Amino acid sequence: MQSTRVTRGIDLGAVREQVDAVLEDFLAGKARTAAGRGHPPEVVRTVRDFLASGGKRIRALLCVVGWHASGGHTDRAAVLRVAASLELFVAFALIHDDIMDDSASRRGRPAVHRAMRARLGDDERAARLGAGGALLVGNLALMWAQELLHTARLDTGRHRVVHGLYDAMLEEVMYGQYLDVMGTGRSADDIEAALEIIRYKTATATVERPLQLGAAVAGAGEATLDVFTRLGLPLGEAFQIRDDLLDVFGSPDGRCAPGLSDLREGKRTVLLALGLQRADPVRRERLRRLVGRPDLGEREAAEVRAVLEASGAREHAERMITSRYEQVLRALDAAAFPEAADRALRDLAVTATRYTS
Amino acid sequence: MQSTRVTRGIDLGAVREQVDAVLEDFLAGKARTAAGRGHPPEVVRTVRDFLASGGKRIRALLCVVGWHASGGHTDRAAVLRVAASLELFVAFALIHDDIMDDSASRRGRPAVHRAMRARLGDDERAARLGAGGALLVGNLALMWAQELLHTARLDTGRHRVVHGLYDAMLEEVMYGQYLDVMGTGRSADDIEAALEIIRYKTATATVERPLQLGAAVAGAGEATLDVFTRLGLPLGEAFQIRDDLLDVFGSPDGRCAPGLSDLREGKRTVLLALGLQRADPVRRERLRRLVGRPDLGEREAAEVRAVLEASGAREHAERMITSRYEQVLRALDAAAFPEAADRALRDLAVTATRYTS
Repeated sequence: MQSTRVTRGIDLGAVREQVDAVLEDFLAGKARTAAGRGHPPEVVRTVRDFLASGGKRIRALLCVVGWHASGGHTDRAAVLRVAASLELFVAFALIHDDIMDDSASRRGRPAVHRAMRARLGDDERAARLGAGGALLVGNLALMWAQELLHTARLDTGRHRVVHGLYDAMLEEVMYGQYLDVMGTGRSADDIEAALEIIRYKTATATVERPLQLGAAVAGAGEATLDVFTRLGLPLGEAFQIRDDLLDVFGSPDGRCAPGLSDLREGKRTVLLALGLQRADPVRRERLRRLVGRPDLGEREAAEVRAVLEASGAREHAERMITSRYEQVLRALDAAAFPEAADRALRDLAVTATRYTS
Repeated sequence: MQSTRVTRGIDLGAVREQVDAVLEDFLAGKARTAAGRGHPPEVVRTVRDFLASGGKRIRALLCVVGWHASGGHTDRAAVLRVAASLELFVAFALIHDDIMDDSASRRGRPAVHRAMRARLGDDERAARLGAGGALLVGNLALMWAQELLHTARLDTGRHRVVHGLYDAMLEEVMYGQYLDVMGTGRSADDIEAALEIIRYKTATATVERPLQLGAAVAGAGEATLDVFTRLGLPLGEAFQIRDDLLDVFGSPDGRCAPGLSDLREGKRTVLLALGLQRADPVRRERLRRLVGRPDLGEREAAEVRAVLEASGAREHAERMITSRYEQVLRALDAAAFPEAADRALRDLAVTATRYTS
């Protein structure tokens, strides 16, 4: 049996370590600068701890695999830098997301703004200052992501394409979060509306753009970038629907515990839309009543899970993941990438859509 | 009499119009993209309105003057783009600042997060969503600032220097705001602590870095960049002390009304530090009691102003501005820049430190 991490020619475990080494090296430099200038050391430490606390590094891996798929072989240092930049960008987006949702935790630890607040006290002022501090740490993560990108030493032509793709990604994610925060004006049982938020917020930034960025570092043309758009949408949707299932139900292997955050926040997920559509009127009313309550407890969460289960919403969400996974495989068949990259993409499609956090 | 805006060779009014035209053109492009992709139009509109609501464009002007002072004559389009980028960066910083301080207004209009909140309702949820929406608008302003910068089409060598300076500026401002939010751990009567926050938060970003960025576009060497560091510190400090005086006392010509925001927020200004140091024990205690009260009214503000006046704090702050202004003039004498740039810098030093908002 072959491990899913070592594919002929692309060792994803090794790529992950290389990306982490770039991040570690870059942040060590930032820590030295901060020490030299008398800046508070906890800012860099917070970003480091956040990166160390987990994450699949799925965007970084896709970036490097996109580069391989496009025949990349020189410029390895550049693509690792672009890949590392994506992970700092994710850190920024999640830190800000947690402030906006006032999420209590992230990756099993207190969210950054909550950790900062806890250091300051437990009153209203501590909450405001903690949010402010986390906002600034997030901003620095974004600035550093951009710094990693523009110091990647690409030639002028590729530099321009890479920056164009990256700028488009940043904009898409911000507009997606904006829709998420300010509301789409559409109903919570609207599956298309939930998919639209995924498209803006996740699909492009998690899959399409990282693959394209790697491809652009390797000098790929429009045709290859288009293949990654076709791959990116179904894989990104599958990834997000899986993520939403994991948040509510956890993973069967117990590595990911079921949680309350999406339910308390009333997150407009495909899973929730399915539940609202498929439950009978009495249970639908219960869903509407329970989901979005900031004080939702374990007992109510169990009730919500039971409705999502009994209505067939959970099963239907699983089928949506499977059909998207199959679309990805068909797009890969048609693309006929070099074998090593093709295998790595198939492995990553599994990683992104299976029960792992 | 010569106008202060038209100096031999550099028409600052025209430069301002050119910078605004770059911003307008860039944001018109963003509005078209948003319309084409079905993104909500109010994001671009909010940034445009913010820029249109005022501001001296002091950073953009200093950037262009720094370019002139360093012999810039080709690359005019590039320096205007870098200058415009600085103004989008300021928009980002102020929008986020207002969220963190929960300021009610900015430039005589409701602050962005307050305007968004007002559109959503008047409850706790509207406040949270308004802050989230404004956070994202601020993030987009920062991303667009960076996009304007890296699309300025500089040759590789200058591109690297410009980006290095810009990255340093971003970091300094974030660390300065971080100190401001999380506290320096030093007392409110500590003038050096207040000056330190100015140095990080204002002096470099408002004066030193903009001048250096313009110089770097013109290909200036280390020696010129160092002159701008020597100029930037006293001019930035004078600018900020003036700004703090304007916030509390307004301007004698009535164009800038005295306000309550710094007093309510308890902002650690040089003016406040001077007041705390110089007032007698009874009045010092009153200052400590009143400044920082979120519900401070006009009557209490008048009392604070009277203490700052009677203790000589206001007058001493004015003297600090004057002595810094004189340092700037001495630095300019020593630098011996080309006449047109020298005159423009002297004019800007007046603009930045006199009674104008």
